[in-house]
Amino acid sequence: MHSAAITELQTLLGDRLVTTQADRDLHGQNETWYPLTPPDAVAYPETTQEVSDILKICHAHDCPVVAYGAASSLEGQHLATRGGISLDMNRMNRVLEVNAEDLNCVVQPGITRIALNEELRATGLFFPVDPGANASIGGMTATRASGTTAVRYGTMRENILALEAVTADGTIVRTGTQARKSSTGYDLTHLLVGSEGTLGIITELTVKLQGIPEAISAATCRFPTIEDAVNCVILTIQSAIPMARIELVDEMMVRGFNNYADAGLPEVPHLFLEFHGSENSVAEQAEMFGAIAEDFGVEAYRTATKTEDRNALWAMRHKSHYASASLGKTGHLMPTDVCVPISKLAEAVVQAQNDAKRLGLTSTIVGHVGDGNFHSGIALDPTDPEQMKAAEEFTDALAKTAMRLGGTVSGEHGIGLGKMKYMNAEHGAGVALMRSIKAALDPKNILNPGKMLPPAE
Amino acid sequence: MHSAAITELQTLLGDRLVTTQADRDLHGQNETWYPLTPPDAVAYPETTQEVSDILKICHAHDCPVVAYGAASSLEGQHLATRGGISLDMNRMNRVLEVNAEDLNCVVQPGITRIALNEELRATGLFFPVDPGANASIGGMTATRASGTTAVRYGTMRENILALEAVTADGTIVRTGTQARKSSTGYDLTHLLVGSEGTLGIITELTVKLQGIPEAISAATCRFPTIEDAVNCVILTIQSAIPMARIELVDEMMVRGFNNYADAGLPEVPHLFLEFHGSENSVAEQAEMFGAIAEDFGVEAYRTATKTEDRNALWAMRHKSHYASASLGKTGHLMPTDVCVPISKLAEAVVQAQNDAKRLGLTSTIVGHVGDGNFHSGIALDPTDPEQMKAAEEFTDALAKTAMRLGGTVSGEHGIGLGKMKYMNAEHGAGVALMRSIKAALDPKNILNPGKMLPPAE
Repeated sequence: MHSAAITELQTLLGDRLVTTQADRDLHGQNETWYPLTPPDAVAYPETTQEVSDILKICHAHDCPVVAYGAASSLEGQHLATRGGISLDMNRMNRVLEVNAEDLNCVVQPGITRIALNEELRATGLFFPVDPGANASIGGMTATRASGTTAVRYGTMRENILALEAVTADGTIVRTGTQARKSSTGYDLTHLLVGSEGTLGIITELTVKLQGIPEAISAATCRFPTIEDAVNCVILTIQSAIPMARIELVDEMMVRGFNNYADAGLPEVPHLFLEFHGSENSVAEQAEMFGAIAEDFGVEAYRTATKTEDRNALWAMRHKSHYASASLGKTGHLMPTDVCVPISKLAEAVVQAQNDAKRLGLTSTIVGHVGDGNFHSGIALDPTDPEQMKAAEEFTDALAKTAMRLGGTVSGEHGIGLGKMKYMNAEHGAGVALMRSIKAALDPKNILNPGKMLPPAE
Repeated sequence: MHSAAITELQTLLGDRLVTTQADRDLHGQNETWYPLTPPDAVAYPETTQEVSDILKICHAHDCPVVAYGAASSLEGQHLATRGGISLDMNRMNRVLEVNAEDLNCVVQPGITRIALNEELRATGLFFPVDPGANASIGGMTATRASGTTAVRYGTMRENILALEAVTADGTIVRTGTQARKSSTGYDLTHLLVGSEGTLGIITELTVKLQGIPEAISAATCRFPTIEDAVNCVILTIQSAIPMARIELVDEMMVRGFNNYADAGLPEVPHLFLEFHGSENSVAEQAEMFGAIAEDFGVEAYRTATKTEDRNALWAMRHKSHYASASLGKTGHLMPTDVCVPISKLAEAVVQAQNDAKRLGLTSTIVGHVGDGNFHSGIALDPTDPEQMKAAEEFTDALAKTAMRLGGTVSGEHGIGLGKMKYMNAEHGAGVALMRSIKAALDPKNILNPGKMLPPAE
């Protein structure tokens, strides 16, 4: 099991190269339904130079390397399915620079989004991307994550200015600059964002920051039907109200929140909202949204201006994974996400609800509907082959619905293991281009092998 | 001169393959100071399939292909420096779909930004990227253009959802979807954006649109010194006022406008501004900006709410190229641009002014300073070797200043021929990655050869 590489890595890293079963098992776990997949060893680098040295060793020995952050990825991205090294980036978790005047900061990949925002608190700035999970910034970048605030502030794609990364042979590369834009050369930064650790290991990131808004208010409201809620979202976005968050919560998801968090909400479709801006602008936005929502039969449109009420609302929203899982018997969840053009959102959501009913599944819908992106979470028992078969049929139908409607099989969870089977259908001839880029940058296929790109036919 | 390829292309295209001297010369011209560089022939494709067939022929015969749009690129990107075919995309200039509900449209690459906005007028939507020149959308994409409105709406990078392109061997590829975000696969869309025709020929684009704001107001104001003007911009951006345009015009540029367009402005540093939003929000933004500007000694802060006054202001701004050139004796201009972190903007601008003085050059500064991006335009006589030497020393010093300050040698003009010499200094080991991507996608080096990537050492 890659013992030559491991021996050399032990010489390099000493006790920061771990082969205990406990640590290997820890790094083989995941938040969803993939089976335990322990790597052969876990490496804990502390510097970019160490990452480079590790990759040189692994490159020489054809040993797979899979980056590991918070392990919150949902499609198995961090699992060492071909063995080799789990490269645990959690010791590289410092904020290296805060450039308040330029609204950016330089961080190491292992820092989590909550830790980063805690370190930024005194500056009046914040890092806006919020996928719910307390993911690492490196992992969020590698999976092109987004979340509740992407409708206003963009996804990781829009929030990374520059990267340092180590390529398969150990070369250290810097991409981008601290300037807000550039037209020099191929956009290597955005080639790495979303590459799921298959093209390089990210070792440093310059991320954009936002000023904490002068005023923030949150709101909840409910609608008679899911179409009403979705059509209200569509018109809100088309009206260019600069929503900071606009989240759809379907009947089943409300049941989950009631079950898991005693939310006490009526089990009908809800929207959870947030407005950012000046005092005047926030009030104006809330009023404009209210006027649109009236046309769709909104009820109980309530604003929460107190920080603790707002935090409670989003804390609940961020528990949707566990709240969805709580509706089943085993606590396991098969989550999936798609993203469609917003004009097709109602059709996609209703189709997903109908498919779940038809297949007898307990499935929630919650999503960042301002982007046309939503999640279905199927509570299931992974040891029950019939449930697994039905769940796979559901996710398959949803992926195909998204593609039929001009969308994508994942808005933010990524490809990993779970969605490789759709790469050809979504990207066609583009897959061959991706393969040639992968072969050019990682000819020995040691970086997260067996992920994202399906085997050539 | 690639006669075998040209013979086959004539069979394919008939009289849409042109070899007259007049047409070749037309396609060998440029807006700046590069010498006339005619291609061997000009091809006028009308469909994606024809572009594919042309590339198959050129690929078989090792014949260079350089895409040609509006020829408004400023670093020689469209010049066929190694001969071969100029691929004139102007017959592929249709709007194929307007998806008003989804705030996007699908266009062919040859349409210009003004023509697109004319076609969109009835929809209440507009395409926001505005580089000044009436560039083609395909060319703007290939050079990662931006312009006056990028501070609010982003550059071409942020405004392209999906592409169709033809690769070197004639393969037709589709990248991206009409969904607003995706986390599936390598970001081929953004690899092509800014690749200057060296990785593929763009044949179709899905671009984002914006709703025409309820209210728009423009404003001008002047400052005692350039540092005051720049520091006012820095604080405005840090205060998160959502400026739609914020343009710096230095003393010499004002002289150019006075000279070329009888602007009648005092020859001191100016800012030209635009605010977009609701009536209330526009008024609030203008007031917030005014309060900041007071601290920097602003004078004559005047708002233009009438459409014709606003249009006159931006029409003048968009003539900065010719106004700068008018300050010299021959009408020729050597334009250059850099982009720096906004905290370094004052230092970079003052350095540029001092360098111009030291070298005895007549050089204007005008720029999208909300992004840290500015242009210098040197009026010169390209036949005067001393002026050319001084101008090259100036642009060289400016590029090095930008890199020293953590910025980039071009914010929006690109690399082309003119800035290849800085690629190694700015990108270091990244250049080898770019070369390996180029070799993987265009192994025969037929797509815009000799541009962007400097020869390997």
